[in-house]
Amino acid sequence: MRIDLNADLGESFGNYTIGVDERVIEHISSANIACGFHASDPLVMQKTVEAAKTAGVSVGAHPGFPDLVGFGRRNMNVTPKELKAMVMYQIGALSAFCKSQGIALQHVKPHGAMYNMAAKDEALAIAIAEAIKDVDDSLILLGLAGSKLIEAAEQVGISAANEVFADRAYMRDGSLVPRTMEGAVIHDESLIVDRIIKMIESGKVKSIDGQEVSVRADSICLHGDNEKAALFAEKLKKELIKSGIDIVPLAEVIKK
Amino acid sequence: MRIDLNADLGESFGNYTIGVDERVIEHISSANIACGFHASDPLVMQKTVEAAKTAGVSVGAHPGFPDLVGFGRRNMNVTPKELKAMVMYQIGALSAFCKSQGIALQHVKPHGAMYNMAAKDEALAIAIAEAIKDVDDSLILLGLAGSKLIEAAEQVGISAANEVFADRAYMRDGSLVPRTMEGAVIHDESLIVDRIIKMIESGKVKSIDGQEVSVRADSICLHGDNEKAALFAEKLKKELIKSGIDIVPLAEVIKK
Amino acid sequence: MRIDLNADLGESFGNYTIGVDERVIEHISSANIACGFHASDPLVMQKTVEAAKTAGVSVGAHPGFPDLVGFGRRNMNVTPKELKAMVMYQIGALSAFCKSQGIALQHVKPHGAMYNMAAKDEALAIAIAEAIKDVDDSLILLGLAGSKLIEAAEQVGISAANEVFADRAYMRDGSLVPRTMEGAVIHDESLIVDRIIKMIESGKVKSIDGQEVSVRADSICLHGDNEKAALFAEKLKKELIKSGIDIVPLAEVIKK
Amino acid sequence: MRIDLNADLGESFGNYTIGVDERVIEHISSANIACGFHASDPLVMQKTVEAAKTAGVSVGAHPGFPDLVGFGRRNMNVTPKELKAMVMYQIGALSAFCKSQGIALQHVKPHGAMYNMAAKDEALAIAIAEAIKDVDDSLILLGLAGSKLIEAAEQVGISAANEVFADRAYMRDGSLVPRTMEGAVIHDESLIVDRIIKMIESGKVKSIDGQEVSVRADSICLHGDNEKAALFAEKLKKELIKSGIDIVPLAEVIKK
Repeated sequence: MRIDLNADLGESFGNYTIGVDERVIEHISSANIACGFHASDPLVMQKTVEAAKTAGVSVGAHPGFPDLVGFGRRNMNVTPKELKAMVMYQIGALSAFCKSQGIALQHVKPHGAMYNMAAKDEALAIAIAEAIKDVDDSLILLGLAGSKLIEAAEQVGISAANEVFADRAYMRDGSLVPRTMEGAVIHDESLIVDRIIKMIESGKVKSIDGQEVSVRADSICLHGDNEKAALFAEKLKKELIKSGIDIVPLAEVIKK
Repeated sequence: MRIDLNADLGESFGNYTIGVDERVIEHISSANIACGFHASDPLVMQKTVEAAKTAGVSVGAHPGFPDLVGFGRRNMNVTPKELKAMVMYQIGALSAFCKSQGIALQHVKPHGAMYNMAAKDEALAIAIAEAIKDVDDSLILLGLAGSKLIEAAEQVGISAANEVFADRAYMRDGSLVPRTMEGAVIHDESLIVDRIIKMIESGKVKSIDGQEVSVRADSICLHGDNEKAALFAEKLKKELIKSGIDIVPLAEVIKK
Repeated sequence: MRIDLNADLGESFGNYTIGVDERVIEHISSANIACGFHASDPLVMQKTVEAAKTAGVSVGAHPGFPDLVGFGRRNMNVTPKELKAMVMYQIGALSAFCKSQGIALQHVKPHGAMYNMAAKDEALAIAIAEAIKDVDDSLILLGLAGSKLIEAAEQVGISAANEVFADRAYMRDGSLVPRTMEGAVIHDESLIVDRIIKMIESGKVKSIDGQEVSVRADSICLHGDNEKAALFAEKLKKELIKSGIDIVPLAEVIKK
Repeated sequence: MRIDLNADLGESFGNYTIGVDERVIEHISSANIACGFHASDPLVMQKTVEAAKTAGVSVGAHPGFPDLVGFGRRNMNVTPKELKAMVMYQIGALSAFCKSQGIALQHVKPHGAMYNMAAKDEALAIAIAEAIKDVDDSLILLGLAGSKLIEAAEQVGISAANEVFADRAYMRDGSLVPRTMEGAVIHDESLIVDRIIKMIESGKVKSIDGQEVSVRADSICLHGDNEKAALFAEKLKKELIKSGIDIVPLAEVIKK
């Protein structure tokens, strides 16, 4: 059994710092690096790719909407054509820093509102999958487990990886409980660890209304905002290893 | 004898249009495509790379300063480190659209203030040359003939191409007469054509004070702003061919 | 009988030009001037306010979403709080140029997606009305006739002005026929003129399905994109005057 | 004897936080609030103006270059005309939030590279002074003591206030020792306090080469970046009061 641990890194911008990247990077196997639209800048991208290489962490592009002030978290009514072009642009931009470090880009994980919108909207999901395929068809699309993003990757003919959220409750249909609903976020760290291990071992999670739900877990999303998040990443990693689960980059998890 | 004709394309942005790209593209052999910092956006880049491929025109990245409202024409006091990262970013972004079209990126030509500053500043010129080398060392750096950009390419170990300006007067030291000086821009089209042919045939141009000056011409910069510029491009191309000069992409001009 | 003719001006940006402002400004009584978020920049705003003063045209702020590449035409999921602050900011910015010209700002008309969203969404409409009230409660909110924007102005306690569209078909409920529906845009100039005059004289318009619908017309929105639009503005103005309808700024139309 | 203590506040942006505003605001009499070009956004501006009002601190606009990624610290080769318009725009934007709080804007202090360039360049200094005068001629221009900014204010006919830096060494001509020179920044807090008190009491400071230099101090620039800066602000305030110096807003200091 094996799993990938991913976190969003490289979200600082100019004089502004977000995240404790140097702490979190020690405990993950894949990094989603922002590409300058919702966060990051060329210097931050360069530095973060270097840090990922040094830490032996695989690199993914983390494209977002062109909404720096909103941190890419506000839905924007972009057309599939616009979306495809902005994803291609951002993948290319991050690729330059990977090339300069002599490492391969591993995956693409859309950010924030782009991720959430495309998880439910087939046309947007297809636009993202096509953007990836057109730039480099060996890249993996990392998206919400069982969502339109996963379907789109399969339809377009690129690899997909299913992301699960350690601290989020699930609906009976396998979707995330919206943050506006009570119980959406799980705070008990032991419970989180148990749920994660169960997802990996059995492909099941207990939904918010008590049903056994199938969820495929290729990668777990960890937070990298603060020291507490970094400590939990460390703890989760230890518990997974103790349970005989290997932490490996995304590409190895989904390798047939 | 052979020469490359280049023009800046893809400078439109969102709802805003600049240039008569579809007219100019017929008469050039290399296109410098803006990368979203001083002009252009992902959709414009995608469309322009497609148009260049269709027209059989080679593609170059045209990185600029992050100054959309100033169109990249205002000097900015960036550090070499910042400059290197922003050039890498922009090369990468444009490369994505080249990959999707199955064509190779040919060259990099800095834009506006970045071009002018680096032509005179060794540290900035080296930063640009290193950015290119780190991303793809087969790319050609297109810069002002005889400037620090050409020296930097040689120093760093990438190919350089010397750009000359059809409608600009030259100083005795081979630099351009500043636009603020009288006589900086030549308006007589026949004279422009004669000067260009002489530069290509003999590597010489008459300076503003009447001296014979050596200038190596690998590529001629043409304007693409309006219909008149497109008509002149057409005329120049005809006259060059009539004089037995082949119009070929940059990569062929500088091939040893 | 009297009516205001308004048009969106000052939508150029840096090196980019949109619209034939100097042509259109002769035929309108109120100008909506973009404020730097979806279009315009400080120099364009300064120049446009000067031109409006010279032409004797009243000035309004035309705030939009922070989406330059999308020209403010893409829906963005902003919160009412964010919306209120961004409208206040833009009103203030334009006010500076009015003060420097010694003229009073007359009105505020939201742009594009902001206009359309707030026309239907009470919370967003209230946010805009409150932004106006908090900055200067003498300003008029110009919004779609009969929409949530008009209701919000009344609720908040500022003046409202009803905008009608010369070239758009209307639904039975007084809303505009969506552009995606056939017949949404009327191209017959004589028909447009007749409909406008009828709206002003009788407060009625024939809906797309043939019903008499009540529409209050305080101001007519004219386009300023091209020469054809300018010529139509000229024609409409003449026909209105011929019909005994005075063209006066918004503030005079709604004066009790 | 009286002095103003000023600090740059409201430099957060979207999801990004800079500064410990709520700590520093307790110890100053005037706040320079960023206006959205080099830092800040509409919500941050609104919140910061509210906080200043609550704390009884006078508010100034802190306009910067349109260079968010460079935090307005990189010299940009703007024309005086461009500079004037961008300063007017930013003053107007901040004024909207002052109006909504029912407080008057007190002053304008240019930020970073704009401040430094204009301190030495007469044309740029005049552009800033004219921008202020055109928008509201009761505003005070806060600039480097004895610099072109102060001269420009006098020439244009608006009030000027001389700013001194608590922790910076001075040259014999009254200018600041460049940060690149050794000894440019003073770290000994007791020495800083002594120098400040001497400047206020006698209008003199000891230059880096040991000369008595005349410096007029209307306002002292304090940092607001971190807890240490906040603690020093607190200490300085106490020491000044102990020495019989009143801490009052800028407008009261320069009142004749």
